[in-house]
Amino acid sequence: MELKRFFINGLDLKEGNSYKLEKEYYNYMINVIRLKLKDEVIVCNNSGLDFLCKLELLEKNEVTIKVIKATKNLKEAEIKVTLFQALVKNDKLELILQKITELGLVVLQPFSSKFTVVKKLTKKLDRLDKIAENASRQCGRAKMVKIESSLDIKQLPELLNSYDCSILAYEKGGINLKKAFENKSSNNLAIIIGSEGGFSQEEIDELKQKVKNLYVVGLGNRILRAETASIALSAICMHELGELN
Amino acid sequence: MELKRFFINGLDLKEGNSYKLEKEYYNYMINVIRLKLKDEVIVCNNSGLDFLCKLELLEKNEVTIKVIKATKNLKEAEIKVTLFQALVKNDKLELILQKITELGLVVLQPFSSKFTVVKKLTKKLDRLDKIAENASRQCGRAKMVKIESSLDIKQLPELLNSYDCSILAYEKGGINLKKAFENKSSNNLAIIIGSEGGFSQEEIDELKQKVKNLYVVGLGNRILRAETASIALSAICMHELGELN
Repeated sequence: MELKRFFINGLDLKEGNSYKLEKEYYNYMINVIRLKLKDEVIVCNNSGLDFLCKLELLEKNEVTIKVIKATKNLKEAEIKVTLFQALVKNDKLELILQKITELGLVVLQPFSSKFTVVKKLTKKLDRLDKIAENASRQCGRAKMVKIESSLDIKQLPELLNSYDCSILAYEKGGINLKKAFENKSSNNLAIIIGSEGGFSQEEIDELKQKVKNLYVVGLGNRILRAETASIALSAICMHELGELN
Repeated sequence: MELKRFFINGLDLKEGNSYKLEKEYYNYMINVIRLKLKDEVIVCNNSGLDFLCKLELLEKNEVTIKVIKATKNLKEAEIKVTLFQALVKNDKLELILQKITELGLVVLQPFSSKFTVVKKLTKKLDRLDKIAENASRQCGRAKMVKIESSLDIKQLPELLNSYDCSILAYEKGGINLKKAFENKSSNNLAIIIGSEGGFSQEEIDELKQKVKNLYVVGLGNRILRAETASIALSAICMHELGELN
């Protein structure tokens, strides 16, 4: 049976060491999923490693784990892909977050723009983190998608210029998507998707002017919903980068 | 403003002719979306054409339309792609249906297999047709995804052999997905996706033996949920076939 997987981000785990976990873990581990002393679990701290741990001590509603062995998790993609997602309704954002976790992306950067109907992240980051955690657990990853605080579209160029390549989906975009992948040396890639209302031409022009290696692509003749565009383009990019073989 | 779009499948429309519609259309057209005499609408009959029509007569709770002009709808894909989808829970099936409509597929063929938890289509086809219709309307297509009655996996080989190429996602699949697209002459393509429980090795072996031009591909190291696999592989196939440029 596959071992249960936990995410304790920020905990600096080392082989052979023991760690007393915060009380919230006791309830879940012992009362909810009914682990017992000496049971083994996988603990992840977002480092890309899987830490095989044993429940070493249970007392005063606290769990102490001992790290038996650290191994590289082979489900993480080699290439770092970030989704810059214009704000959409919560249920769409949650769907996107779940799907990009499965597809192997590493960061979700929400942003507002002229035509975003949703103007700020109304869902608490805690709740989104929980969705990211569940999705990572389900698909066996050692990392959770990192959800950044929302920005304004005007703040994007500076960030995007730290990526090897940025791909933006725009219904009037004309570049063939395959062109963006002709240079295979990309180590980090940004995908940029608008909200239900799309981008204004001025926003596109400004991004084109300020962002290096930006490919503005169409996604075919049909109008894709925002969340479909995000999932489809993420899948296509991971495929083109050799991460879905 | 974009004209309203209606699907009346099976109605044989011709330029210059007039057609009295069934009563159900009167309520929707006149009472719900408040069209008036002489208003123009687009009527689609799943032929791939858009029929520009005028509301010619309103009487006795019936609408008569006159076909002004038929034009080819440019949003339909050139290549016919069918999704063979093992039965999954209703909400997943509905999500898949909506997304493959946007991506331009033409047929959804559900099937049951050894590990399908859902054993038959519990949702009425009417309800699924309504989802297909709304999705087609939203993305401007002239066709609705045709939803076939569910089959047993043993009935698939005969159907699959009428396709130029079939691509099946299997977690132990080894063929590089790009290989399936090296022969670019494909006019019709089948995508085959398992349920939450996946396929048995025996099922895969039997399909391999009986189906010509079958590519059994993995979709990366992460475990994708059934609906993610369907949406991702549909997007990748349409991209590889040049339908998302």
